[in-house]
Amino acid sequence: MIRVLGIDPGLTRCGVGVVDVRPDRRAILVHVGVIRTPADDPLETRLLAVSRGLQSVLAEFEPEAVAVERVFAQANLRTVMGVAQVSGIALALAAERGLAVGLHTPSEVKAAITGYGAAGKAQVGAMVARVLGLDEAPRPADAADALALAICHAWRRSAGAAPEGELTPAQRAWRDAEKSTKARSL
Amino acid sequence: MIRVLGIDPGLTRCGVGVVDVRPDRRAILVHVGVIRTPADDPLETRLLAVSRGLQSVLAEFEPEAVAVERVFAQANLRTVMGVAQVSGIALALAAERGLAVGLHTPSEVKAAITGYGAAGKAQVGAMVARVLGLDEAPRPADAADALALAICHAWRRSAGAAPEGELTPAQRAWRDAEKSTKARSL
Repeated sequence: MIRVLGIDPGLTRCGVGVVDVRPDRRAILVHVGVIRTPADDPLETRLLAVSRGLQSVLAEFEPEAVAVERVFAQANLRTVMGVAQVSGIALALAAERGLAVGLHTPSEVKAAITGYGAAGKAQVGAMVARVLGLDEAPRPADAADALALAICHAWRRSAGAAPEGELTPAQRAWRDAEKSTKARSL
Repeated sequence: MIRVLGIDPGLTRCGVGVVDVRPDRRAILVHVGVIRTPADDPLETRLLAVSRGLQSVLAEFEPEAVAVERVFAQANLRTVMGVAQVSGIALALAAERGLAVGLHTPSEVKAAITGYGAAGKAQVGAMVARVLGLDEAPRPADAADALALAICHAWRRSAGAAPEGELTPAQRAWRDAEKSTKARSL
């Protein structure tokens, strides 16, 4: 089993999600939340608040790995600087604790979770809820995205260990669920 | 007098410069350096190395204010993500210590130092050397830029206190030196 902290970096809302993932890909929700900072606070105050929020999640839940969304400069120019600044802080905090770090693009996360790299927010949220056995998708979307990152990290990490022909019953059930969701969304 | 740490954020080279600036605008070099990280190290390792380097400068020289280059998404897309990530770490470290923080654009720094917002690297380096009484411009350019940021911060901060008509002899000498440099560069 591996405990992963997923971080969806952002200044206004930074999603954090902690999951325990078993080798058979089954995942259990440990914690989910959103660190918020007021838009009219000075930038350095907001960055410090996010840093402290991340530090308290790391201290409380002691993940073994941290998954952070890989940021691209091509994304929304208005918000990308804050996203990059928060991701820098998150990565340095993980490295400080000697934790394994994974960077995943939004497409990689969507593909891992829904089987479809261009899936919408609602679809990702619905699949996260199904994987974790929740009644509904975590809200806001940043929280669901953080959980999706954490699950994606654990699954991609173990992907080499379980070739297609040797799926466990849980993995087969999962793959079928993925297919049915994909079919519904088309 | 105010002691300012200027930070020119970057992953490969992060310039740091500490200056003491008196109310009459005279500036004294306290420290200058460059934090370097190997390009083939993992991103999180590099960010942690820069974070530790900045922490040790903050601990050793105890600046009262920190000046960081304001990053724009429109800049060089290939390097802007690393620059933004390092700037996020620098700003959070400053806020953690309760230090005053200033963000200055490259144009603002060039204008404050050389009197010309589109000045070249060599011109900024030459003026930094003149202000600090150095025999030559600090190298590499990242180091000179960090010092320029620190000087710019102290001067802009005190600008309101010394209207044009009430310049001290040192400030007049400075203004004349600025003009002569500008004239030579045209």
